[in-house]
Amino acid sequence: MTATGPSLAERVLAADPRAVARAISLIEDETEAGVSLIRQIFRHTGRAFVIGVTGPPGAGKSTLVDRLAVTVRESGDKVGIIAVDPSSPFSGGALLGDRIRMQVHARDPGVFIRSMATRGHLGGLARATEDAALILDAAGTDVIFIETVGVGQDEVDIVRMADVSLVTLVPGTGDDVQALKAGIMEIADIFVINKIDRDGADRLAIAVEAMLGLRSWTEGEWRPRIVRTQATEGVGVPELWAAVRAFRAQAEAGSFELRRRARAEFRLRDLLTRHLLKHLETRVLKSPELNALIDRIGSRSLDPYSASSEILAKMLKTVD
Amino acid sequence: MTATGPSLAERVLAADPRAVARAISLIEDETEAGVSLIRQIFRHTGRAFVIGVTGPPGAGKSTLVDRLAVTVRESGDKVGIIAVDPSSPFSGGALLGDRIRMQVHARDPGVFIRSMATRGHLGGLARATEDAALILDAAGTDVIFIETVGVGQDEVDIVRMADVSLVTLVPGTGDDVQALKAGIMEIADIFVINKIDRDGADRLAIAVEAMLGLRSWTEGEWRPRIVRTQATEGVGVPELWAAVRAFRAQAEAGSFELRRRARAEFRLRDLLTRHLLKHLETRVLKSPELNALIDRIGSRSLDPYSASSEILAKMLKTVD
Repeated sequence: MTATGPSLAERVLAADPRAVARAISLIEDETEAGVSLIRQIFRHTGRAFVIGVTGPPGAGKSTLVDRLAVTVRESGDKVGIIAVDPSSPFSGGALLGDRIRMQVHARDPGVFIRSMATRGHLGGLARATEDAALILDAAGTDVIFIETVGVGQDEVDIVRMADVSLVTLVPGTGDDVQALKAGIMEIADIFVINKIDRDGADRLAIAVEAMLGLRSWTEGEWRPRIVRTQATEGVGVPELWAAVRAFRAQAEAGSFELRRRARAEFRLRDLLTRHLLKHLETRVLKSPELNALIDRIGSRSLDPYSASSEILAKMLKTVD
Repeated sequence: MTATGPSLAERVLAADPRAVARAISLIEDETEAGVSLIRQIFRHTGRAFVIGVTGPPGAGKSTLVDRLAVTVRESGDKVGIIAVDPSSPFSGGALLGDRIRMQVHARDPGVFIRSMATRGHLGGLARATEDAALILDAAGTDVIFIETVGVGQDEVDIVRMADVSLVTLVPGTGDDVQALKAGIMEIADIFVINKIDRDGADRLAIAVEAMLGLRSWTEGEWRPRIVRTQATEGVGVPELWAAVRAFRAQAEAGSFELRRRARAEFRLRDLLTRHLLKHLETRVLKSPELNALIDRIGSRSLDPYSASSEILAKMLKTVD
């Protein structure tokens, strides 16, 4: 410890909850300090098991996650919950959920809860969520739940970074059909049919099973399971946790590293694209040279394709 | 003329309709030959007046455009019609429309008709449409209609490149409200309320007028006009053409060059972004070095942000 006290990274690694909260805020605000922090803690990550939970609004995801969190806590493992709402620019709704949750886990310092809302940047929320999970991971969290509402591209990107993906469906809302159509179904490792006391639970299970029947699985490949729950009563929660553990055991024996590698690649591609476009925006498109080129296009003495090639030749070390 | 005959560019400039059709196909297929052609003809463009026409399906855009085309032809000016359907990956529907149109303008070699459908590339259709318009322009077409169905981002991008933008609405379908909500309303220079024999035409005109009343226009700035038509009967078509001519006169006296410059800038930015991402995809992300970096991220010996910086440093001449 220096005279100025431990750094934020050191405090995160020491599992100081206020430091973790502060670090996630830096990430959420897309600050340079946040990037610097991730660089410092990254080599201390990779231990946590990340569980992605998504599904349409009202599917009971929060209750399900809370129940699973309690189950995890029984083993002594530390839990992190990141609730993401891609559809809302404000975290008001999520904050309400937070307050209810804080009551459920109020006396348990082994549960860290955080909500994140969209900042409107393309893909920004998925990146911020992944970084938030890295921070919890570095702080010694054993199991991280990432809970997100909806079935769109943002959710796919968010769930893609999880070690296991749970898609929660609920009978008789019509949302099930919408979810079945969306790409999110293809990334589900476990389907949770929640609120099985409602009409249509069997029909929904049959529909999901029929969809799964459309493809085949190779030896050693995980075939998605369907688990029925009534989260409010705790019904099916032990079975769901057993399915998660079964997935984890099989993954760690086989495809786990492949999946993490795919995740690293996805992340790197995303960062590269973002940095490149930012470079273009701040360094190239704001230059006076660009205005001269646009004038030449306007007067038809230069065509747009040649102008683009000219700029890229100046910008890139090697050009196609 | 060489022993091999005139080049495609020369034939386009000589207004050979088969060469024009072939050139547009090269553009549509996103070939290098298409790019090369645009480079050759670009300095011969900039004469045509481009009219963008959009609106919800069923608003009667095709009929309207056909009527306007007949009006333009009365002055002897050559007409091009590019019908774009961003929602369809196939041009079947547009082709049917083409056939009907070809009957309307069958005996008139002064009308060139072409339909274009999406290739699924992000923004690709807008680029292809703009290039198709350049080809018609180079071939001596005086007035080019670009007709597109819908009110989404694709349509905004397509209409953005026009010299004047017509948004067609139709009473009593509910689509009007959807259109009013969408960004397309902000780029309309002229609102066409078509099918005025239907109920609700007055209400729709009042709604559009109310929306226009929400902002103010500076001296010399064009205030969007509302024109009522019943295109199938030709009602309102002379008034609509008069509005287009009034817009053109005012634009040419003032903001015309500004608008064309904004278009050149939009185009150049779009090309740069596309070329940069293609360079990333084909040159950088396929390199063996990238795999080594991903492995290092997977083993946590390198964080994704540092990996991204490392790649960009190799790729860019100057790095932030």
